[in-house]
Amino acid sequence: MRILVVGASGTIGKRVAQALEPKHEIVRAGRNGADVSVDITSPESITEMYEKTGAVDAVINASGGANFKAVPDLTPELNEKGIESKLKGQVNLVLLGQGYVNDGGSFTLTTGIMMDDPIPLGASAAMANGGVKAFVKAAAIEIPRGIRINCVSPNVVQESWEKLGDFFAGFNPVPADRVARAYVKSVEGAQTGQNYEVY
Amino acid sequence: MRILVVGASGTIGKRVAQALEPKHEIVRAGRNGADVSVDITSPESITEMYEKTGAVDAVINASGGANFKAVPDLTPELNEKGIESKLKGQVNLVLLGQGYVNDGGSFTLTTGIMMDDPIPLGASAAMANGGVKAFVKAAAIEIPRGIRINCVSPNVVQESWEKLGDFFAGFNPVPADRVARAYVKSVEGAQTGQNYEVY
Ligand SMILES: NC(=O)c1ccc[n+]([C@@H]2O[C@H](COP(=O)([O-])OP(=O)(O)OC[C@H]3O[C@@H](n4cnc5c(N)ncnc54)[C@H](OP(=O)(O)O)[C@@H]3O)[C@@H](O)[C@H]2O)c1
Ligand SMILES: NC(=O)c1ccc[n+]([C@@H]2O[C@H](COP(=O)([O-])OP(=O)(O)OC[C@H]3O[C@@H](n4cnc5c(N)ncnc54)[C@H](OP(=O)(O)O)[C@@H]3O)[C@@H](O)[C@H]2O)c1
Repeated sequence: MRILVVGASGTIGKRVAQALEPKHEIVRAGRNGADVSVDITSPESITEMYEKTGAVDAVINASGGANFKAVPDLTPELNEKGIESKLKGQVNLVLLGQGYVNDGGSFTLTTGIMMDDPIPLGASAAMANGGVKAFVKAAAIEIPRGIRINCVSPNVVQESWEKLGDFFAGFNPVPADRVARAYVKSVEGAQTGQNYEVY
Repeated sequence: MRILVVGASGTIGKRVAQALEPKHEIVRAGRNGADVSVDITSPESITEMYEKTGAVDAVINASGGANFKAVPDLTPELNEKGIESKLKGQVNLVLLGQGYVNDGGSFTLTTGIMMDDPIPLGASAAMANGGVKAFVKAAAIEIPRGIRINCVSPNVVQESWEKLGDFFAGFNPVPADRVARAYVKSVEGAQTGQNYEVY
């Protein structure tokens, strides 16, 4: 298969690309993407990316951010990053990309454990994750031409522990390679509408 | 208690206000609100509303919309209504209103069954509902001064069946009065972080 991986240089995206590349052709994307550049916060940039890649069999997104802020300090403005990047960025990859995915292909987006097991400062990211999960479940029943759509909800990964561990007190981090397997399941399997929890 | 009900003239909001008014003072809001006007898609309008109402003990929202569109026809632009109204409108009522809610008060937002039991044309609304549910769960652990936050997820209500029934084939509509009880539970009870499913 020809697989577009957005966020292919990231902690998770790198392992996803590595897990898939023995059997598939990988197109690596990101703001500084190795093969094609895209900023998922811009619909125009997403469309330009798809025009460059042309048809693909699978789209994986392992990018998207949100501000970490306590609810009393979270303003509508600070909440915008989660809305524009983690939520709309991912949804727009589907809305604008569905015409570029071959029959029977797939989309795989990324949510995260914070929506199920909330942490301080995490309300904006949780909001975006919950929106993506519900969108995936609903879109799966009517996305056309046998295209499937799932998301992966990673726990905090071991490789990010040094950077993120303080936010995830008491969480049991998982190896990024284990998270990557859920993306492989989504792409090579046959399920749709799922949120694969790798907790 | 002094309770602000946004969407108090609507099918659900009307029953919520009726259920609460024997024991509480109700402040009715909406774009054409009986007591105070607000457009939840505008942060400025939300802040103006709170400046007019002053301190309240509870904020209930029973308003917010999204476009009904099939995924192949759902554009980023059409998805904006769900983002701006049902999702950000509700989240901003909390972010901008937390300073106006008395110690130990509450917020109660509205999601909906479509995020759990998806229907055709419902992906945008489901997305917004899922975002609100996850935000509520996460915000509950750090919203200050003992303020609680819940949401109610109504099934399609009997009173909307004539208008909405065609979208909800095979659903078993529930009376709006039964839905209203979940808002009463949220306001008068002691739970937080909940999504009350009235299915
Ligand atoms: N790491 C964890 O423990 C963990 C746990 C749960 C969920 N997640 C979620 O998983 C996703 C990936 O996390 P990660 O830790 O692997 O991230 P990361 O190491 O920071 O990598 C992010 C990747 O996304 C790309 N990217 C960033 N912003 C982008 C944009 N606006 N448009 C396009 N590409 C963009 C980056 O490349 P460029 O800089 O070239 O754009 C990079 O390839 C995020 O949504 C994160 O919230 C992570
Ligand atoms: N009805 C159902 O079966 C059902 C089922 C599940 C979930 N829900 C959800 O429950 C909520 C209420 O539904 P409903 O059927 O009661 O709606 P409705 O009858 O259409 O009433 C909507 C209410 O919200 C107000 N409103 C609309 N847009 C607003 C805005 N931008 N800012 C402030 N107020 C606004 C309206 O008053 P003004 O016109 O004066 O603004 C009205 O009071 C919606 O989020 C809906 O998606 C409904």
